[in-house]
Amino acid sequence: MATKENGKKVLPEEEHPRKAFGWAARDSSGILSPFSFSRRSNGAEDVTIKILYCGICHSDLHSIKNEWGNARYPLVPGHEIVGVVTEVGTDVNKFKVGDKVGVGCMVNSCRSCHSCKQDSENYCPQMILTYNSADKDGTMTYGGYSNMLVVNEHFAVKIPENLPLDKGAPLLCAGITVYTPMKLFGLNEPGKHIGVVGLGGLGHVAVKFAKAFGMKVTVISSTKSKEKEAIESLGADSFIVSSNPQQIQAAMGTMDGIIDTVSAVHAIMPLIFLLKAHGKMILVGLPDKPFELPAFSLILGGKILAGSAMGGLKDTQEMIDFAGKHNITADIELIQMEDVNKAMERLAKGDVKYRFVIDVANSKIDGLCI
Amino acid sequence: MATKENGKKVLPEEEHPRKAFGWAARDSSGILSPFSFSRRSNGAEDVTIKILYCGICHSDLHSIKNEWGNARYPLVPGHEIVGVVTEVGTDVNKFKVGDKVGVGCMVNSCRSCHSCKQDSENYCPQMILTYNSADKDGTMTYGGYSNMLVVNEHFAVKIPENLPLDKGAPLLCAGITVYTPMKLFGLNEPGKHIGVVGLGGLGHVAVKFAKAFGMKVTVISSTKSKEKEAIESLGADSFIVSSNPQQIQAAMGTMDGIIDTVSAVHAIMPLIFLLKAHGKMILVGLPDKPFELPAFSLILGGKILAGSAMGGLKDTQEMIDFAGKHNITADIELIQMEDVNKAMERLAKGDVKYRFVIDVANSKIDGLCI
Repeated sequence: MATKENGKKVLPEEEHPRKAFGWAARDSSGILSPFSFSRRSNGAEDVTIKILYCGICHSDLHSIKNEWGNARYPLVPGHEIVGVVTEVGTDVNKFKVGDKVGVGCMVNSCRSCHSCKQDSENYCPQMILTYNSADKDGTMTYGGYSNMLVVNEHFAVKIPENLPLDKGAPLLCAGITVYTPMKLFGLNEPGKHIGVVGLGGLGHVAVKFAKAFGMKVTVISSTKSKEKEAIESLGADSFIVSSNPQQIQAAMGTMDGIIDTVSAVHAIMPLIFLLKAHGKMILVGLPDKPFELPAFSLILGGKILAGSAMGGLKDTQEMIDFAGKHNITADIELIQMEDVNKAMERLAKGDVKYRFVIDVANSKIDGLCI
Repeated sequence: MATKENGKKVLPEEEHPRKAFGWAARDSSGILSPFSFSRRSNGAEDVTIKILYCGICHSDLHSIKNEWGNARYPLVPGHEIVGVVTEVGTDVNKFKVGDKVGVGCMVNSCRSCHSCKQDSENYCPQMILTYNSADKDGTMTYGGYSNMLVVNEHFAVKIPENLPLDKGAPLLCAGITVYTPMKLFGLNEPGKHIGVVGLGGLGHVAVKFAKAFGMKVTVISSTKSKEKEAIESLGADSFIVSSNPQQIQAAMGTMDGIIDTVSAVHAIMPLIFLLKAHGKMILVGLPDKPFELPAFSLILGGKILAGSAMGGLKDTQEMIDFAGKHNITADIELIQMEDVNKAMERLAKGDVKYRFVIDVANSKIDGLCI
C-alpha cells in the first residue's frame, strides 16, 4: 500500500483514478469477499479490459492461503482472464475497442533483458505478475477476480473468434504452461510418444494439445478411476496407474517426453525410467518438498529433467491461435463470483473437472451486478 | 565364465585362442595382481591392438571394489586405452597395421537401434562395456590393464599424430564424458560462460576444452587450495569455493551451463542458482546418494538438469581430433603396472594431479616385460 505525503496510508481505492471492484482475500484464511480498489488511467500503450471470465488456477488457492509465504493482503487473485477491450491508448497497435482479449500470468516486464528479447518475458527478472506483485509505481497488482483491468497491450493476446471465451480462459495459464515446454523440447511432433502426469487443470489441456500435435499420449495418474475419462473423453491412447509397478515396467523406455503437472509430493524416478534415451521430462507442478533424484536415473540414457514456468507473449498468442484452429478448450464448471469460496474448497479436494471459471460479467461484485 | 560340454568351467585363459596378460582384481578388496587370460582371434572387422598406455579412471576403482554391486571377478579394469594396431581383419577400412588408436568405454553395441543410428552407441541397450560386461559370446570383457585387445574397428578411434599417447589416453573416457554434453547442449560457443564443478580427472579436462572453445570458465570446487592451479595452470577465468555463500550469491544467474563432475554427495541447488534463465546443468559424476531437488529451482528460470554418460564413437573421434588440433591433453602421473595398487589407494584419497596413466608397454605383466 502506498503512503501519502503526510505519512497516512493511501487506500487501494484511492491509489489510482479509476474505480474497480473485485473479490479479495484479507488474510491466510483465504476467504474471498467484495473489495473496492482502483486501476490506473489508460496510458498510451495500455488497453482497458472489461473482464468477462476468469479461470481459477491452483496458484490462486496457494496464494490466497499464503502457502508460498509471499501473500500481501488484500489479495485479488486471477490470471486466466478474458474480456473485451473498452479503451485503447494512442500508441496501441494490436487492439481496438470491442476486441476479445486475454491476459495471463504477467502484466509487465523490462522488455530489454536477454529473456525479454528472446520472447521469454516469463523469465525476466523484473517480470510483474498479474496479482500480488509490486507494480512499477510501487502499488500492488490485482488480478482477474474483478470487473476491469488496465494493461500494456504487449501483455494481452487476441482471442480467436471461434474460441468460446469461458472455456478459453484457462488456456491463458494452464494452456501456455504446458504448450511452451512441449514446443521448446520438441514434444509437439506427430508420432512422438508423450506422457502426461496428472489429469487436472493442466494435464487435461496437455492431453488435448498433444493429440492435436498428432502424438501418442499416455496419461499417468495415481487414480485408476480417471482411466475411462482419459481414454474416452480426452482421447489419450493409454493410461498408467503410477503406483502399479507392472504397468510402469511395461512402459519403460518408451516415451520421448513427459509433462509432469503434479503439485503433490511424488516420486519422479519411476517416471524418468519411462523415458527413452535422450528423453525429456518437464516439471510444471510445484510440490512443496524436494524430489529425491539419483544421478544415475538421468545419466543412464542421457536424459533431461527441466522446469518450465508459464510462457512468453509470442508463445501465448501462438498457443491460443493453435487452440482456436484445433478447437482446444478447457473442460470447465462455470460459477458465479459469490460461489468462489465454495469452489476453492472443492478445488482443494481436487473436486472439479477440470477448471472452475468465474462468470465475472454476470456476477455480483461489490453488491452491484456490473 | 563359460562352461565346457562336460560341465567343467572353462578357464579365462582357455576361452579364446590368443593368450593375453593383464592385472585383475579377484574380489572386493580390489587388489590387482597378474592374470593370464585370452582374447578372441582377429575377426574380419576387428583390429588387434598392442596396448601402450591405459588411464586409471575413478570408475575402475568403483568397479574393482564392487562399489556398484555388479563386479564379476576376475576383473581387469581399464577403458582409457591407447595402443598400436598389430593386425587388421579383411573388412577393416579405418585402420592399418602401425596406426595409433584409442579405445574408450565401449567395445560393442547393436549398431541398429535408434541410439546407435544416431551415433549414440553409448545409450544402446545392448552396448557392451570394455570391461566387466558380458560379450556377445557370453565371455566377459577384460579392459586395458593388459597387453593387448581385439576390438571391432568401429569402436576404435584414430589418435592424431601430434597427440602424446600417454597424456592422450585419459581423453578416451574423461575427455569424451565432458566433450559430448558440452557439444550437445551448446556449451561450446565462444563467449558463453560455463561452470565446471570439481577439479579432478574430468574437471581439469573440461576446463581445457571450454577454454579451447573460447568460453569464460569458472571452476567451482570445495577446495580453496585448488584456486591457484585452476587459474594459473589451467587458465580458468574465475574460481568459486562451493561452501562460500557470498561467492555463490555473487555469481547467481551468470552461467549458461555447468558441467558437474563430482562423484561425492553434494548439494546441487546452489549450483542451479548459478545458471541464467534457460541454463543447463549436466551431471557426469555419480554420487551414491540421491540429490535433493526442489522443483522450483528448475521451474524458476526454465532450467535444465541433464545426465550424460560417455559419448558415441563419432563424437569420440571428433573430440580427439579437436584435442590434437588444440593440444589438449590430460595432466598425468605415469606409473608402472606394479605400482597400480598404490595408485588406487592414492586415487581413493584424491591424491593425483589429475590422472594416473599406466605405462603398460614398459611394465612387468605376468612377470614378463612385454
